[in-house]
Amino acid sequence: MKTDISLEEAQTLLLELVQSVKECQVPLTSAVGRIVSQDIRTNINLPLFDKSPLDGYALKAKDTEDANSSNPVILEVIEEVPAGYMPKKQVTSGTAIKVMTGAPIPNGADVIIKFEDVKREENKVELYYPLRTGSNIIRVGEDVRQGEVIAKKGAVLNPPLVGLLAAIGVDAVSVFSKIKIAILSTGDELIDPSEELRSGKIYNSNLHCLGAYCSQLGAEPVSLGIVPDEEAAIVERINQGIELADLVITTGGVSVGDYDIVPTALKKIGADIIFWKIDMKPGSPIITAKYKNKLIIGLSGNPAAAFITFDLIVVPLIKRMMGIDKELPVKFSAILAENFNKPSEQRRFLRAKLQKNNRINYVELTGDQSNGVLKSMVACNALIDVPAGSGPLLAGQEVSAVMVGSGSELFI
Amino acid sequence: MKTDISLEEAQTLLLELVQSVKECQVPLTSAVGRIVSQDIRTNINLPLFDKSPLDGYALKAKDTEDANSSNPVILEVIEEVPAGYMPKKQVTSGTAIKVMTGAPIPNGADVIIKFEDVKREENKVELYYPLRTGSNIIRVGEDVRQGEVIAKKGAVLNPPLVGLLAAIGVDAVSVFSKIKIAILSTGDELIDPSEELRSGKIYNSNLHCLGAYCSQLGAEPVSLGIVPDEEAAIVERINQGIELADLVITTGGVSVGDYDIVPTALKKIGADIIFWKIDMKPGSPIITAKYKNKLIIGLSGNPAAAFITFDLIVVPLIKRMMGIDKELPVKFSAILAENFNKPSEQRRFLRAKLQKNNRINYVELTGDQSNGVLKSMVACNALIDVPAGSGPLLAGQEVSAVMVGSGSELFI
Repeated sequence: MKTDISLEEAQTLLLELVQSVKECQVPLTSAVGRIVSQDIRTNINLPLFDKSPLDGYALKAKDTEDANSSNPVILEVIEEVPAGYMPKKQVTSGTAIKVMTGAPIPNGADVIIKFEDVKREENKVELYYPLRTGSNIIRVGEDVRQGEVIAKKGAVLNPPLVGLLAAIGVDAVSVFSKIKIAILSTGDELIDPSEELRSGKIYNSNLHCLGAYCSQLGAEPVSLGIVPDEEAAIVERINQGIELADLVITTGGVSVGDYDIVPTALKKIGADIIFWKIDMKPGSPIITAKYKNKLIIGLSGNPAAAFITFDLIVVPLIKRMMGIDKELPVKFSAILAENFNKPSEQRRFLRAKLQKNNRINYVELTGDQSNGVLKSMVACNALIDVPAGSGPLLAGQEVSAVMVGSGSELFI
Repeated sequence: MKTDISLEEAQTLLLELVQSVKECQVPLTSAVGRIVSQDIRTNINLPLFDKSPLDGYALKAKDTEDANSSNPVILEVIEEVPAGYMPKKQVTSGTAIKVMTGAPIPNGADVIIKFEDVKREENKVELYYPLRTGSNIIRVGEDVRQGEVIAKKGAVLNPPLVGLLAAIGVDAVSVFSKIKIAILSTGDELIDPSEELRSGKIYNSNLHCLGAYCSQLGAEPVSLGIVPDEEAAIVERINQGIELADLVITTGGVSVGDYDIVPTALKKIGADIIFWKIDMKPGSPIITAKYKNKLIIGLSGNPAAAFITFDLIVVPLIKRMMGIDKELPVKFSAILAENFNKPSEQRRFLRAKLQKNNRINYVELTGDQSNGVLKSMVACNALIDVPAGSGPLLAGQEVSAVMVGSGSELFI
């Protein structure tokens, strides 16, 4: 069992142990947010055929060679083609076909002129200047080419990608299945917010906070509820979680005190401990284990510590299991907008908000940085990564940070 | 009826005409992503009581005044208090109470010392240095104070906010109701991706793309399907949309060509036209109307034009109707990473991707900028706002842009 390892080693060790789950087919109408499980190639070109980008007349450019304002060229309009219909005739010298926006280019025509730029008289049009072959024609395959990969395995189905799949005639898509994540809170002091408050007890927030995060990521949270600090009860619920879910998360009971019995429970069920404790603050008490080919991650009971380690360690695992191909939080540099007066003996992550009204990235702290404080997580979209051995931080200095929270994939 | 107005005028005119919809109660377990409809105040302090941040001993600092390594102070341990239980005894001079992480501070104690920093012998502890009153005590109300507003009306319920509400004992929350958005695609050329491709037809993408976007925003898309370019059919479906939904979106048929009959249909049903066409590219053909106290927004049928005007004009409306208090896309400045060679006679929005690995914001173009092209929307998270009358743009120049797509609220 490793102990006091770095965050990066923890991420690597765990990511190596998981893989993406099964795949399934979903209708395109409910595919948004899901992850593509197989490269998708298009069987057709987009556009499907040469077409007109505007309402106008299709003709032969050669016919307009001598056109000018005093000597217009006059062509006979032999057909009118709306979008959605094929021309029946073909353009020959001396004729034109009226085409609406999106209509296929008639055979024989090599240029389109806007209808505002000609004079129409009954079945004739007058043209006043020479045209260049190929003007105003959208070519077949200009957007996508038949056979091209439209969406790679691991891509998130965002709305334009859903639209693009519709455009190539895909109405069902292979995606990775939703994963289930069991969450258990341990602690004699905890009661659920639906219960009456009793003396010495506190409301449990971790189950709700982490469950909400799982939902937001597109995974399915499975609540294992709250158990007291009793080894037998913890063992039973973890076993239940292993049966019900793809990943088990616990909160509380992972330090080295007399009542920190999640590590004991994990050893009891015969799980292989991967590591215990990481070298960072908050969140250093974390234990991870593998059991029946599934991972169990025991997080701190302190709300901010639990949430930050969830962000930095559990979210990448969930993303890998969901089939997303870039899992780790996105790193960036920014200018610190205010002082942080404490020195940092240990590596420390500070809750911060990236401000983006300027072309320079600024980060400001979101409030009280204590382990137990949830309030400063609410506005947090970034964590400042303060190296071990740092002195106080000064406003204006450059800092390293990572994006956290749902939405940070925007920047991948 | 106004025409060819600026984007900003269009946004203002429409936002003035909508308001947030009804509210409802949801259980906390399904509240993530919803919008708070009433300020939420806490009835309790967090923490609820003075408590210990670690496993240790509660005692009187005064007792340790003369402690040093050769002359330790010895205290009698009279009780042990786990988290979740109230101390039964009180600390008097010469005594200490063992407290576990999260346990309430016993009466009479004014300091906690870590258990690693003392020597325990049976029911005695030895202390080797003087302690400062108040050390290692988390004070009642340090995180949130009774009566404080925890979440303002209009706040998005992100996972830490869900956790914070759990922590103050809230298990159901008032949120704005989901809004319904009816979407209709018009055009003789359109078929659904579930249909067989026929000559001259193309697959319709707008319905799927915009429906997916509505879902992602937390609204409920209602498909009105595809109708041909026939006034009566369009009138009928728009009426249906007005009955079924809070907002009606159409695509196609909004230019000035012979077959652009959405404006005609809107006049036919007696809707008040608000404006027709805006001064920007792509997306200039857009018509908006009010009917039976609901808005109808007719977007271009060109996929990129429809999507960009949806982002810039419809999304702010949806956000206002959903109760989100900042609706407009977030503006920022960035450095253009590559040349864009076309001059821009009209104001133009370019599909781009904000890159964030550096402390300077860079934007790069995501590909072909034609009206009909969807492919370059897939990676787009920002639109570069190119003023009318601009020449070609050069790599390295500063440009204005807005964040678009779900997730951009991260930066509000």
